[in-house]
Amino acid sequence: KINAERLWDSLMEMAQIGPGVAGGNNRQTVTDEDSQGRHLFADWCAAAGMTMGVDQMGNMFARREGTDMDALPVYVGSHLDTQPTGGKYDGVLGVLGGLEIIRSMNDLGIRTKHPIVVTNFTNEEGTRFAPAMLASGVFAGIHTQDWAYGREDAEGLKFGDELERIGWKGDEEVGARQMHAFFELHIEQGPILEAEGRDVGVVTHGQGLSWTQVTITGKDSHTGSTPMPMRKNAGLGMARVLQKVDEIAWSHAPHAVGAAGHIDVHPNSRNVIPGRVVFTVDFRSPDLTVIEDMEKRLKIETDAICKEMGLDVTYEKVGGFDPVKFDEGCVTAVRAAAERLGHSHMDLISGAGHDACWINRVAPTAMVMCPCVDGLSHNEAEEISPDWAAAGANVLFHAVMETAEI
Amino acid sequence: KINAERLWDSLMEMAQIGPGVAGGNNRQTVTDEDSQGRHLFADWCAAAGMTMGVDQMGNMFARREGTDMDALPVYVGSHLDTQPTGGKYDGVLGVLGGLEIIRSMNDLGIRTKHPIVVTNFTNEEGTRFAPAMLASGVFAGIHTQDWAYGREDAEGLKFGDELERIGWKGDEEVGARQMHAFFELHIEQGPILEAEGRDVGVVTHGQGLSWTQVTITGKDSHTGSTPMPMRKNAGLGMARVLQKVDEIAWSHAPHAVGAAGHIDVHPNSRNVIPGRVVFTVDFRSPDLTVIEDMEKRLKIETDAICKEMGLDVTYEKVGGFDPVKFDEGCVTAVRAAAERLGHSHMDLISGAGHDACWINRVAPTAMVMCPCVDGLSHNEAEEISPDWAAAGANVLFHAVMETAEI
Ligand SMILES: NC(=O)NCCC(=O)O
Ligand SMILES: NC(=O)NCCC(=O)O
Repeated sequence: KINAERLWDSLMEMAQIGPGVAGGNNRQTVTDEDSQGRHLFADWCAAAGMTMGVDQMGNMFARREGTDMDALPVYVGSHLDTQPTGGKYDGVLGVLGGLEIIRSMNDLGIRTKHPIVVTNFTNEEGTRFAPAMLASGVFAGIHTQDWAYGREDAEGLKFGDELERIGWKGDEEVGARQMHAFFELHIEQGPILEAEGRDVGVVTHGQGLSWTQVTITGKDSHTGSTPMPMRKNAGLGMARVLQKVDEIAWSHAPHAVGAAGHIDVHPNSRNVIPGRVVFTVDFRSPDLTVIEDMEKRLKIETDAICKEMGLDVTYEKVGGFDPVKFDEGCVTAVRAAAERLGHSHMDLISGAGHDACWINRVAPTAMVMCPCVDGLSHNEAEEISPDWAAAGANVLFHAVMETAEI
Repeated sequence: KINAERLWDSLMEMAQIGPGVAGGNNRQTVTDEDSQGRHLFADWCAAAGMTMGVDQMGNMFARREGTDMDALPVYVGSHLDTQPTGGKYDGVLGVLGGLEIIRSMNDLGIRTKHPIVVTNFTNEEGTRFAPAMLASGVFAGIHTQDWAYGREDAEGLKFGDELERIGWKGDEEVGARQMHAFFELHIEQGPILEAEGRDVGVVTHGQGLSWTQVTITGKDSHTGSTPMPMRKNAGLGMARVLQKVDEIAWSHAPHAVGAAGHIDVHPNSRNVIPGRVVFTVDFRSPDLTVIEDMEKRLKIETDAICKEMGLDVTYEKVGGFDPVKFDEGCVTAVRAAAERLGHSHMDLISGAGHDACWINRVAPTAMVMCPCVDGLSHNEAEEISPDWAAAGANVLFHAVMETAEI
């Protein structure tokens, strides 16, 4: 068993870096706080006897040697970056859970045939630079590195420049590593495990995602002196579209979700009718045909609304991935570990996207999930119990030991 | 007649300060650009032989002496601050039109019995610090100065601190001045004069305004892993309210307008369901009972939407004034001047709020309007013709001369 107290202490220590305003964290990708978090993680890895590699996307790889020089490593990990108002566990549990299994192997004198590499992927959240899972996506060959470097945040700063600025642009070619397998431990971020009273989720699939950035252009004009029939109110157009987004998602319930989290209104002045709005529609489903249908209907409905209102509209797909089926062997290893440890468990479809979703394209992959209170995540109040963290980390420990062959 | 070319040149010179991104201006109140614009205006006033007074709200008063030491001055003016993406004429025409009548009187050797004071009121636009017409409101005794000083912009900077920082907090007690009359020249900001083919609007009334800042609180949560029935999507709640705002305004058409220009979404991340939105609803009508009805229905509809969606809501009235009826004597002076000069004219109700609306509470007041292209204002593309500017300034010139007694 892993050392549950040490894992929890490390989670709390990492949470000191980039504190939020309400008990959570604001440690967004490639900020100074991200750099500080990386240094703490790197120090811990060095203390655990691992050697660190960093690739040109800033992905960190801390390696513990195996007994067979020719064996491919088993990778574990997740991400240390957070939402602007994020929790202490989303991503962090998977990285520090990976570190904890190495520390526990050291304590218990366990050697594995395959090396084990604990990974921290850059910009999983996608909140500062869309899309989410940017660096694991480059690793898996989904995006080119140049395209990733050119992604801009709301201030127009480029991902590549910011990565260089914080000092974490490594030398290693991205995606050059080969993996025997990849395991990611993550909090569920949804309500199912808690509602069903299970300690462990065995993730068999991940639902797919589509992010469409919609720009509606009307005409800035005076809120007082512009007669109602002359208005081209881009904000009102957006309001009608947001209502449709909700209707479209519900029409596929319970197999789809939809919302817009990102909304920018220009010029954003109380007495100016919005001349331009930019917002991102997030649709998800485990079923690719459902995602495609929702994307299609979004455009049909939005085109119709804008046409009727005399507004212009453009669409840009700023993120997306198809539904994922994880590797049967790795999934079986996770389920067997939960079984062996006597933890209540169930199969799950991940509602969120994860680095594991991209790594699954280039290596046998699976995920372990633990419950979170009220299914709440992407909120500073995100909470898990130390017991849940320990159960998840122990399942990860055993699945990795089996796969890395002790 | 005033010197139309000089007026136009001054308008163009002022527009050099705080240029926008699309041919207009961004010279928001109590910014460095505002200070620069004030210095240019002060220099011009000094060159025209006027003496400057500045009050504790930063209102500027440039005085040309009259022949009767005991006569109360006739005031003219408007504001030099602009929207973030504003035009070159909104407010500026009224201040520089006032300056031009003094320059013309100097050229023509005209003396008046009453002194004439050209005024620049601080923060008319209300875009950086709500409400609009803040400093004329303090002048008229509507707001206390301490309350005004405490108004905060989006960054949390206080109006009073910013006024001091830019160096334009004067010594003079606000509202201590007594006015014989006040005249404001302004662009219409609406389409009526152009559509009717009239050069001059004689403003008899101003419609009233109500600004309600609505804060809807839901719960930040993950856009992917939060099931649809568990969501508390404050952004979707806002979308429904914005549609009601439109319906409520239309239900009183053509005697009311309504929209929201200011919308802030938190945390504004693509994969976080908005936990909080703050937006300002702008309702206007020339009929006070209509405004009261719209405010009441806004709350009833919003309460119902939020209740159904499990959202919390609070309201704050951040601006408002009742419909205005301008002084009959001053209005008659404006109409008579247009008549005398042979300009086509018509009576108008101002759709926008103006400093004149507050000054009307403490002095006989009227307004002159000139057309603007396509009725477009609060847009960098705002445009007027030099002939329209000249016609309006000439009507102002004659109405002021009559009232100040040559
Ligand atoms: N796990 C997680 O929150 N990932 C961010 C990407 C997503 O929006 O699903
Ligand atoms: N004239 C003008 O645009 N004033 C700003 C106050 C308002 O919103 O009416």
